[in-house]
Parts: sequence; structure tokens; C-alpha cells
Amino acid sequence: MPLNKQFLLDNRPQGEATAGNFKLVVAQTPPLQDGQVLVRHHYLSLDPYMRGRMNDAKSYAAPQPLGQVMQGGTAGEVVESRSPRYQPGDMVVGMGGWQEYSVVSVEQPGTLRKVDTSSVPLSHYLGAVGMPGVTAWYGLVRIIEPKAGETMVVSAAAGAVGSAFGALAKARGCRAVGIAGGAEKCRYAVQELGFDACIDYKEHTDAPSLSRALKAACPDGIDGYFENVGGMALDAVMLRLNAFARIALCGMIAGYDGKPVPMTYPQLLLTNRVKLQGFIVSEHMEDWPQALAELGALVACGKLRPRESIAQGIESAPQAFLGLLKGRNFGKQLVKLT
Amino acid sequence: MPLNKQFLLDNRPQGEATAGNFKLVVAQTPPLQDGQVLVRHHYLSLDPYMRGRMNDAKSYAAPQPLGQVMQGGTAGEVVESRSPRYQPGDMVVGMGGWQEYSVVSVEQPGTLRKVDTSSVPLSHYLGAVGMPGVTAWYGLVRIIEPKAGETMVVSAAAGAVGSAFGALAKARGCRAVGIAGGAEKCRYAVQELGFDACIDYKEHTDAPSLSRALKAACPDGIDGYFENVGGMALDAVMLRLNAFARIALCGMIAGYDGKPVPMTYPQLLLTNRVKLQGFIVSEHMEDWPQALAELGALVACGKLRPRESIAQGIESAPQAFLGLLKGRNFGKQLVKLT
Repeated sequence: MPLNKQFLLDNRPQGEATAGNFKLVVAQTPPLQDGQVLVRHHYLSLDPYMRGRMNDAKSYAAPQPLGQVMQGGTAGEVVESRSPRYQPGDMVVGMGGWQEYSVVSVEQPGTLRKVDTSSVPLSHYLGAVGMPGVTAWYGLVRIIEPKAGETMVVSAAAGAVGSAFGALAKARGCRAVGIAGGAEKCRYAVQELGFDACIDYKEHTDAPSLSRALKAACPDGIDGYFENVGGMALDAVMLRLNAFARIALCGMIAGYDGKPVPMTYPQLLLTNRVKLQGFIVSEHMEDWPQALAELGALVACGKLRPRESIAQGIESAPQAFLGLLKGRNFGKQLVKLT
Repeated sequence: MPLNKQFLLDNRPQGEATAGNFKLVVAQTPPLQDGQVLVRHHYLSLDPYMRGRMNDAKSYAAPQPLGQVMQGGTAGEVVESRSPRYQPGDMVVGMGGWQEYSVVSVEQPGTLRKVDTSSVPLSHYLGAVGMPGVTAWYGLVRIIEPKAGETMVVSAAAGAVGSAFGALAKARGCRAVGIAGGAEKCRYAVQELGFDACIDYKEHTDAPSLSRALKAACPDGIDGYFENVGGMALDAVMLRLNAFARIALCGMIAGYDGKPVPMTYPQLLLTNRVKLQGFIVSEHMEDWPQALAELGALVACGKLRPRESIAQGIESAPQAFLGLLKGRNFGKQLVKLT
């Protein structure tokens, strides 16, 4: 059996996460039992939600246990199988974690999913045609319920969720406006992702200033907002909401380091009769097939052209993850292992 | 035609509302045109939403115009009619405003509603069997959608909305827990309104302290919350929400004086996958008949025993209204004019 480099969560962050929270170890992969397969990971997915799970706090998911392999999505290839359902060479997506190999008991439902790499590259199954894409789909379709002609706004617009959100909103005849960090990401959002406008939040130091920029980009106000970030972006958007606007609340990176980030104008939720709803996409598996089908078609026909930030080698995972939390990635953050 | 004492909005509040914002005038009631009736008001309704409309701010309703009669609900008697649909002696509910008489063009839909005072006293049509009762009904039934056995919490529990909310929640097999100001209101909520518990927020100086009291009163957590107040109560409840909790956002008295009151822990909306929705009951007229029927039945059979704070004479309206904003009322605040 091959040697397997793994990152464990060694200790919990005090405030900001640091590279010292993780520990690299080398283990022997165990021999397979009946019903198990050995997957060689080609890509690790790095996602903002992982930061929340590093805290030992009551949250929607159990905290990432200390001393265990960091959990996370992976895409790879079956290299050995003791299940009739998988053959060596099958390309699969699963939750293998921050390591080079994983042993998966495939009889448990939802552990592995075979994917077709003929029209969609393998890595995209961790992004646009994977959990982040379905996250955008669920927030837009099930919570925001957009109508053609409405204005949809998303923060972290150049990221894996935001880019999918933009393509899905445009496909429904909406105006799509992004918020992103830096001129290059904003250019990408407009020129390659098809956003109608994108605002660089780094040009603004407070919510009223960002809100004025939103007013110019959203002349008819804002009907739907997909929240990836929290803090200033949410406040600024709330100042521009139309009556009966809907907010899908999916991430609040701004609050992950332990300091609660208040919402400044909650009374606007009342005066504008807003619906705000938090969700976790893994609780809505019944919608995944429909969402993945639409996302796969958008990628295949070139209407969704996701970017990826690819770090090389498992040793690069902690720094790539910390960069993601700072917004240093450009599109879906991955670690390539092969 | 009779003389008619009226209160006008004379100037807008700078911060807190004061008696000086209002001006008492005496006018002659105009002669009736065809299709009009003259109503003598027996009761004026005083409601927290009026404070919001005194500001000249973008909100769900147009601001109360300066120099015009303060708008508001009224219950009274038709004393003269030039419409075949109304006869002198008919008891009616309408939006007659802060004055002793009103002239109503009854051909416009929704201006006046005849009421039956044989089993429900006239004044209750401004409270439990009127707009406040329907407000409680809509938030509970349409937004919170309670299930038997769940725990429902309401702020301002001894008020017109809160007391109806408690009775409606109990009728659905829920645990009902109130938050109110003072031991007497809490005793009333438990002993006369049937709340399972009621917490005196005046015994708590911050949200964590109030939240600990809620933990004791809600051992299974909180599944539904009806927000009348905003500020500390909302923060404290949010710390005790169960996964998939629902918040109906109906009032934020705490923010009416112009200072935005932030929401301290918005990330809990995400981690608990909360649905929060603001609403205005006047936008949901289709639900009023069903709601009024249930509320009328609860009052008639004694399961909802609303209290009223009754000020005497139109001259008392401003002070009664300012007291309402401070929580000095006990139950529905009315002004009796006859």
C-alpha cells in the first residue's frame, strides 16, 4: 500500500487561523476490506466553510476533530477496489480530506460519486459542477426564487459560488451584479462570467460608500442577494434592497475569526419586508441532481467558465487555505496532487 | 354638523417623539356627499407603527403628512349616512384617525367594516379581533408555521399582538413563552393569557443575561419567534434558536427613534439555518377573514382575554401614545371618546 501524506488539525485557531494549526504526517494506507476502494486524490477542494469547523463552537456541523485528517472534498481516481460497483480507473468525487489517498466504504450512501470527465474537466466537479455550484443554485432557485428582469447581487463574485450564481442568474433573465476584491476580479466577472457589473469592495472603506456604488450598478434596486461574506457587504446591500427582496445566507467569512460582525440595519428587513434565510447545501441532497445537470450544461456550452487557483502539492494546502480566507484566490481554490 | 377635535402632526420628532410634535385643533365636520357616511368615533387605536410614520424616512408606508390629522384605526358608530349600505346605528371599524368624527367615502373598498358587538365588545375590534390580532395570526401561521410541541416566543407578550400570539400558539399545541416588561405583565401573561412562562426583561441588562433566562424557560430551545421590539430581545432569542427556527419580524420599537439598533449575532441565522421574514399585515388582506374568525372565536369562548389600557378623551391621546412607546400600557392602548 502507498505512503499517504496527510494534514491533521493540530490545534484550534485563537482568532485568525495560521499554518501552525495544521500538522503534516505520513501514514501507511491500510489494506482494503470488502466493500472498500482506494482513491488516489488528484485534487483537494479548499472551501471557506472549513474555517468555521476549525472552531470548537456550536454550529451546524460538528467541529473538525483535533488530531484527525482535515475533512474536505476531493476528486480522484479509483486505484484499487474491493467493491463490484467501482473499477480501477473510475473517476470519482468524495470527501477524502486533506491527504493523498483515502479508503472509502462505498456501501454507505453519498460517500463517492462517479463523474464523467468527457465534457467537464475533473477539477470542476469540486467547483462549478460540485458543492459550490449547487450552493449557488440552491440559494438562487430555492430561496431567492428570481423573476426575469430582477436584479441579483452576489458577494465574492469571482469565487466558485459567486461565478456560478452569476451564470445561473443570467440564464434566468436577471441583471447580475457582483461584489469582489480588486479590479482584476471585477474585470473577470464582467468580461468572462457575464456579470452586468462588478464592484471592487476594496475601493470602499464603509458600507455607505459601497452602497452608493451599488446604487449606480443597480439602478432598479436589489431584489435578490446571495451572501458569502457578511459584514460591510451585507450592510451595503441592505441599504439598496427593494420591497420583498430575498437574501440567501450561505457564508459569513467576515465572522469566522470569532469576532461577531453585527448587522447594522436590521430594521430594513422589516421596512422592506425582506425574507432572509440561512442554508447548508448538504441538507438538500434531493436538489443536487437537478442543479448538477444545469451547471454541467452551462459549463459544457461555455456559458459558465470557472476559474481555478491551483496550488501544487499537498504541502501547499495550509497556505492556499489561509490565502482563500483572505480573498487571495481567484476562482475556485484547489490543491493539485498529481 | 358637529364640531370635531383633531390632532395634527405638527412637526417631526428629533430623536424621541414628544407631545410637542402634535397639535390639537377644532374643525367643523363637512356636509356629506353622496356615498359618504359620518362616523362618531368611540375609540381610537394607538399602535407602535405610528411612531415609524412620524419620521420622514423611506419606509413601507408613506410618512404621516405634516399638518394633517394623525392617521390610525378607529371604532365607532355611523351617525349619518348618504349610502344605502350603512344606516345610523351601525357599529363600524375604520381608519378614522386621531379625531372625534370622520367622514368616510364608503364606496372605496376597505374603508369601513361593520362589526357585530353581540359577543365581542366594540373595542376589541381594534385589538385582539382587529389589526393587532391578525398581525399575530399572520406571523404565526404564515411565517412561523408552528408544529405542535414546538416552542414559540414573543416579545411585548402582554400587548395586543403578543397576547393574541400566545393564545394562537397554545391553540396549536405549542409551548408559549413571553417576554414583557415588569412582574405584573408577566403574571398576567401566565395567569390570564395562558403563557407557559414569561420573562421580565427589566431584570436583565444585556442579551446574554436575558438569554440565560430564556434557556430556563425554553428547555427545548426556541423554534419560532415573533419580534415586536428589536434590540436586546432579538439578540437574546437568537442565542437560543434551534436549527430551522423561524422569525417573524413585525416591529422594531427599539429602532424607531432614529438610532439604528444593530443585530449582534447575524451569523447565527446561518449556523441555525434560520428563516427571518419581515411583513406588514395590511398587505395580506386575503388572510384577514380567516384570522378574524379564529380570533373572534377565541375571545368569545374566553381563551383569549385581552386587556386594554384606556385613556379618556381625545386630549389624552399624545401622552397615551408616548407611554405606549415606553411600554407603560398594559394590553391594547386605546383612547375612549364617548
